Amino acid sequence: MNYGIIRKILGIMLIFEAIFMIPSFLISMYYNQEDKYAFLICITLNLIIGYIMYKLNVKKNVIKIKEGLAIATFGWILISIFGALPFVLSKSIPSFIDAIFETVSGFITTGATIINDVEKLPKGILFWRSFTHWIGGMGILVFTVALLPMVGVGGFQIFKAESPGPTADRFVPRIKDTAKLLYITYLSLTIIQIVLLLIGGMNLFEAIIHTFGTVGTGGFSTRNQSIGAYNSVYIHIVISIFMILSGINFSLYYSVFKGKWKEVLKNEELRLYLGIIFVSVILISLGLKMNTQKSIGVSLRDALFQVSSIITTTGYATDDFDLWPSFCKSILFMLMFVGGCAGSTAGGIKGIRILVLLKIIKRDIQKIFHPRAMIPIKNGEKIIKEETISAITSFFILYFLIFVISTIIISLEGINLESAASAVAATLGNIGPGFGMVGPTRTFVFFNPFSKILLSLLMLLGRLELFTIIALISPKGWRNEI
Amino acid sequence: MNYGIIRKILGIMLIFEAIFMIPSFLISMYYNQEDKYAFLICITLNLIIGYIMYKLNVKKNVIKIKEGLAIATFGWILISIFGALPFVLSKSIPSFIDAIFETVSGFITTGATIINDVEKLPKGILFWRSFTHWIGGMGILVFTVALLPMVGVGGFQIFKAESPGPTADRFVPRIKDTAKLLYITYLSLTIIQIVLLLIGGMNLFEAIIHTFGTVGTGGFSTRNQSIGAYNSVYIHIVISIFMILSGINFSLYYSVFKGKWKEVLKNEELRLYLGIIFVSVILISLGLKMNTQKSIGVSLRDALFQVSSIITTTGYATDDFDLWPSFCKSILFMLMFVGGCAGSTAGGIKGIRILVLLKIIKRDIQKIFHPRAMIPIKNGEKIIKEETISAITSFFILYFLIFVISTIIISLEGINLESAASAVAATLGNIGPGFGMVGPTRTFVFFNPFSKILLSLLMLLGRLELFTIIALISPKGWRNEI
Repeated sequence: MNYGIIRKILGIMLIFEAIFMIPSFLISMYYNQEDKYAFLICITLNLIIGYIMYKLNVKKNVIKIKEGLAIATFGWILISIFGALPFVLSKSIPSFIDAIFETVSGFITTGATIINDVEKLPKGILFWRSFTHWIGGMGILVFTVALLPMVGVGGFQIFKAESPGPTADRFVPRIKDTAKLLYITYLSLTIIQIVLLLIGGMNLFEAIIHTFGTVGTGGFSTRNQSIGAYNSVYIHIVISIFMILSGINFSLYYSVFKGKWKEVLKNEELRLYLGIIFVSVILISLGLKMNTQKSIGVSLRDALFQVSSIITTTGYATDDFDLWPSFCKSILFMLMFVGGCAGSTAGGIKGIRILVLLKIIKRDIQKIFHPRAMIPIKNGEKIIKEETISAITSFFILYFLIFVISTIIISLEGINLESAASAVAATLGNIGPGFGMVGPTRTFVFFNPFSKILLSLLMLLGRLELFTIIALISPKGWRNEI
Repeated sequence: MNYGIIRKILGIMLIFEAIFMIPSFLISMYYNQEDKYAFLICITLNLIIGYIMYKLNVKKNVIKIKEGLAIATFGWILISIFGALPFVLSKSIPSFIDAIFETVSGFITTGATIINDVEKLPKGILFWRSFTHWIGGMGILVFTVALLPMVGVGGFQIFKAESPGPTADRFVPRIKDTAKLLYITYLSLTIIQIVLLLIGGMNLFEAIIHTFGTVGTGGFSTRNQSIGAYNSVYIHIVISIFMILSGINFSLYYSVFKGKWKEVLKNEELRLYLGIIFVSVILISLGLKMNTQKSIGVSLRDALFQVSSIITTTGYATDDFDLWPSFCKSILFMLMFVGGCAGSTAGGIKGIRILVLLKIIKRDIQKIFHPRAMIPIKNGEKIIKEETISAITSFFILYFLIFVISTIIISLEGINLESAASAVAATLGNIGPGFGMVGPTRTFVFFNPFSKILLSLLMLLGRLELFTIIALISPKGWRNEI
C-alpha cells in the first residue's frame, strides 16, 4: 500500500472541500448570519491540513487498485468529518455525532436527517448541507463508473466495456476522460432543473437546493415538509422527472448525445428500471385511489413522485407515505432494495444486478430440464462472465445479510420491526426516510450514538458497493499487496 | 410425460390415505363423537376413487424425473383435498377453503391454523389434523432425501453422495432403501418422544398429538395456547430437544448408528445449525431478561423453546412471542428464513444453503485480491460443483422474490407490513404462526379466500423447494420431454 500517495490525494480532497465551502461562506456573509465564522474557520482549517498532507514527501506517484479503494473509503470518511465541522461550530447541530451523521448522509447522497426543524437553520448551513449532495454525487459518478469497473467488485465488471470515453489501460487518464463526460451531463441536468424550478415559481435559493438534492439523488430539503411544502403540480412533476433522469445510467446520456437512440432504447437495465417505475406507479395509485380520499389525479401524482423518489433512492416526499395503505407501503419497501440504474448517483442493489439475478433464476429453471446445457447469461448482446455473475450474487447475499444483522442490532432501540428494518434499508440503500419511527415526517435524531454510527457506516457501505470497504478491512487483503 | 403411471401412483396414495384415516375413525368411534360418519364416508370415498385410479390401464411402468416431480406436486395437492373432507363433513371446519388451508398446512407440516378454538374439536378430527403432520413428514423425508438429490433442483444435488443406503442408479430401489432407513429413524424418534411426554405427565392422546407435531416439525396442538398450556419445565425442554433433533439431517442419524461420530461432529451444516441456535438462544434470553419481568431461568427456557420452534419451522409456542421485545422478534424473524437442516422435515432456506451462501461471499471477498485465483467451495472435504452453487444462489434469489411479491399481495388485506411479511415468511418457510395479526395467539382465519389459497400455495411451494413446482408449471418444461 502506497500510503504517501493516499495521504497526498486526501490532502487535495480537503483543499477542494475548502474551495467548495466558499459559496456557503459567501451566502452566510450575504445574509450576515452567525454561521459565517464557522465557515471561515473550517475553510482555513481544511486549507492548512490539506496543504500539509499534500506537501509531505511522497516516495512514488503510483496509484494501484488498492490505493484507489483506500482513497474512496477514507476520502468519504475524511471529508465527512471535516464537512461536519461547520454544523458543529455554527451550533446548528451541537452534537458532533449528529453532525457526522448528517454530513455522511449528505456526501453519500442518502438524505437521512437528524434535524427536526430544518427551516430555522441559517442559509449558509442549509446551502452547505445540500451542496454536499451535489459534491457527493460527482464523487459517486467517478467512483462507480470509472473506478469500480476496473476493480471489479460486486459485479461492476459488467460496465467495463460500456463506459463512455477511451478505454486506455492506465488508471488516471481513463478516469479523467470519463469524469469529464459525466460532469458535463451532471452539470447540464443541474442547470436545466434549476431553470425549470425557477419557472415554477420557486426562489433561486430553494431551486438550487432542491436541484442538488435531486440530481445527487440525496433528498435534503429546506422545508420540514420536504417537497410537500410546495403546493404545485408543476414542481412535483418536474422533480419526479428529474429524479427518474438522475437514476438512469449516465453513460446512456453520452449515447443519446452521440445519437445512438436505438442502443439506449434497447438497454435492458433502463427498460427494467422504467418498467418497475411504471408498474409500481399504477399499483400504488390504484391502492391510494381505493383506500384513501385522494382523487385519481392526486393518487397518480403522489404515486409517481414517491415511486421516483424511493427507487432512485432520493428520499423526497410530497405526502406522509407512512400513512399510506399497507399495499402501497409494501411496494415502496421493495423499491428501497431495487434502487436506480448502476452508473448513476442512485443507491440500492441497482437495476443491472436485479436483471442478472432474474436471469439466473430463469437459467436454473431451464437447467432442470436441460441439465447438461450450457446456458450463458447475456447483457444485451454480450455474454456476462460467470465470475461477474458470481460477484453479483454474492453482492445480493451480502446485502441481505448486512440488512438482516443490522436490523437485529437496530431493533435493540426498542422500535418496532418495520421501523428498524426500514431504517436499515433506507440507510444501506442511501434513500433517507423509511417507515414508522423513521417515516418522512420524522428524523433519525432519536437513535442513540451507537446506532447513529452504525447507520452512518451502513450508508458508506451501501455507497461503496459493500465489497470495497470489506476488502479494505480484510486483514488478508492488507497483507497481499497487489 | 407418462400420465398413466402418475395416475396410478396417486391412486395408491389415496388408498394409503384411507388406511391412514382408520386410526382417526377408531378414535371417533371410541369417543362416539359426531365425526365418525365423516371418517367412514371419507375412507370409503378414498378407497373407491383410489382403486379406480390404480386399476385403470397403464401403458408402461416407467417413472422418470418429470413423473417424480409431478407425483410429488399433485400428490400433495390431492391428499390435501381428500384429507380436508373429514373437516368439512364433520362440520369442524365448515368452509372448504378453510379446510383445504388447514389440511395443506398439516401435510406440508407448516402448522398454520384457521381454527380459533381447537379445544372444542372432536377427538378423531384432532387426531387426523395432527396425524397429517406425521404422514407429511414421512413424505417429505423421501421427497427431499431420496427424490430431490437425483433431480437436482435448488442445489439439492449437494446430497447426492451423502445420503445413506446403496447408491444404485435406478430410481425405485434407491428410494426404497433410503426410505426404510429414514422411516426407522423417524419412528424411533416418535416412540421415544411419546414415552418421554408420558413420563412428564401428559396423557397418551396429547403425547401422541404433540409428538406428531414435533417430529414432523408441524406445530398443530390440541390446546389453544399451544405448548404454553402445559406449565411444566420438563415438557418444554423435551419438546425443545425433539424439535432440534427433528431439524437435523436424518442421514446423520444413520452415521451415528454406524458409529461414525467423527463424521457427524465434523458436519458443517450441523455445526452451523447448532451454532445459530446457541447464539440466538443467548441473545434472545438476554433480550428477555433485560426488557421483561422474566427471570433468567424462564428467559433461557422460553428462548430455547421458541428458537428451536422457529428454526426447525415447527411453530409451537410456550409464550406469546409477538409481545417480546423488538430485538428478540427480529432474531426470530431471521430464523424463519434460516430453517433447519436439509434432509429433515424442517422447511425454510435450510442450513446447507445458508452455509454455501456464506462461503460464496467469502470467496468473492478473496477474489477481489486474487482476481485470477480459482477458489473452489467445499462442503466438508468435497468440492461443490459450480452448477450446484448456481442452483443454490438461484434458490435464494427466488425465495426472496417470492417472499417480496407475496408480501405485496398479502398486504392488500390491509394488515400492517410486519403481519403481512411474517404471514408470508411463516407459510413459505412452513413455520406456522408469525407476528402481529398472525401471531401465536391468533389464526389465519381472517384472511379472504384468495389470500388463503395464495398462502396454501406458498406452503406447497416452500415444501417442494420452489423449483419443483415452477419446473412443472413451466410450459417449456412440458414440451421438452426428458
